Amino acid sequence: MKYKLTVAYDGSFFSGWQVQKNAVTVQGEMTRCVRQIFGDGASVTGSSRTDSGVHAVGFVCHITAEGNSLSPQNTAQALNSLLSPHIFVISCEEADENFHARYSALSKEYRYLICDGGIRDPFLYNRAWFYPRRLDEEKMNRAAKDFLGTFDFRSFMAQGSKVTDTHRTVYSAQVQRCDGKIEFSVCANGFLYNMVRIMTGTLVDISCGKINESVRDIIACKSRSHAGITAPAQGLYLYRVNY
Amino acid sequence: MKYKLTVAYDGSFFSGWQVQKNAVTVQGEMTRCVRQIFGDGASVTGSSRTDSGVHAVGFVCHITAEGNSLSPQNTAQALNSLLSPHIFVISCEEADENFHARYSALSKEYRYLICDGGIRDPFLYNRAWFYPRRLDEEKMNRAAKDFLGTFDFRSFMAQGSKVTDTHRTVYSAQVQRCDGKIEFSVCANGFLYNMVRIMTGTLVDISCGKINESVRDIIACKSRSHAGITAPAQGLYLYRVNY
Repeated sequence: MKYKLTVAYDGSFFSGWQVQKNAVTVQGEMTRCVRQIFGDGASVTGSSRTDSGVHAVGFVCHITAEGNSLSPQNTAQALNSLLSPHIFVISCEEADENFHARYSALSKEYRYLICDGGIRDPFLYNRAWFYPRRLDEEKMNRAAKDFLGTFDFRSFMAQGSKVTDTHRTVYSAQVQRCDGKIEFSVCANGFLYNMVRIMTGTLVDISCGKINESVRDIIACKSRSHAGITAPAQGLYLYRVNY
Repeated sequence: MKYKLTVAYDGSFFSGWQVQKNAVTVQGEMTRCVRQIFGDGASVTGSSRTDSGVHAVGFVCHITAEGNSLSPQNTAQALNSLLSPHIFVISCEEADENFHARYSALSKEYRYLICDGGIRDPFLYNRAWFYPRRLDEEKMNRAAKDFLGTFDFRSFMAQGSKVTDTHRTVYSAQVQRCDGKIEFSVCANGFLYNMVRIMTGTLVDISCGKINESVRDIIACKSRSHAGITAPAQGLYLYRVNY
């Protein structure tokens, strides 16, 4: 039996998604609970890895459990009663045998939240990037439009990453001010390591005038050194995975 | 020199507002920082006490500091650079010698947030009441209208409280569903101990049919035993103080 789960978690309590020895991770915590319900043969597979401190509003994973027929609704309820309060199963549905949380994904959407102008909202501690200067959301939005399309995004990949094909297609990218905060949302068929955080840092550096090159020129350089800083993990949210 | 400050804090990190020995409180933390700036003679006076775990979006306090003339803007900046990330000074202005954060207050507004229907949003952990059943916001709103007016609110005061005059005037009270959550907001010229939390618990008990008496009848009884449960501290926010 296979289940597709949509999950939210506050990443500040976890060392990322992926299971690690001697660290509390979302996958580790979920696997522990899934095995309490379905036995030791059950497993949890995520749509992607998220880094330590990164949050999720609509992360997707699948559970494989042999010979069990708990209803999706009861599975969600049982998991929510066992899980830490920092993880919540929003929905659970039966999945086709061929469904794979990672390989079946068509696109993913991330959001990045910035509290600018020195406003250090205590309710966003660990949940946004507190940026001391005021940012120009219109300038950032214009620059973000240059991400749209299929490109070699090597300039926006953490150095040392070993991916061979660095081409990705960005379907949407926009920056807007919502409720006083800056929100960058981006949807693509896939993301390179740290790609959203480097995109965000670049937009911020462009807003401040630290970078005068256009995003298109930075992409064309195919060099990490032309892009901006890597924005901190705590402002990043995996928003949605599309299948 | 007197300053009027508007402050936000995440109450889950504090044992309430008021200074206590051997406990981290908001007033304690603010006094420590204010004295670093203005010297040992400086003091911080709040508009009210908030309980352990209660949050504030627009708490007001005043600072008294002798013989100093730091500008309000610099005072806010200096405080924000010293304070814990769980407290933020939103604004600071020079106050008249006669201003008193507590005695000059004309009314206060509180908000109470409930995540109902079993949705345990991890981003609202310690910041809302997670209520397992679905609540009826319209029924709650109709009941809330019965709080409007000047009454002896003794039924909505924690037992053991020693206030002698238990009359208060409620200026506004409403329940609405915002972004999937239930929000109760109430403004009054003052509140008895635990009054908002008992009001909230009563509205919830009315929604669930645990209480069939009307709010007006409960008020008329002048007995705590007729009102509902005391809603937990973590859903309560001091929203605004009016002068």
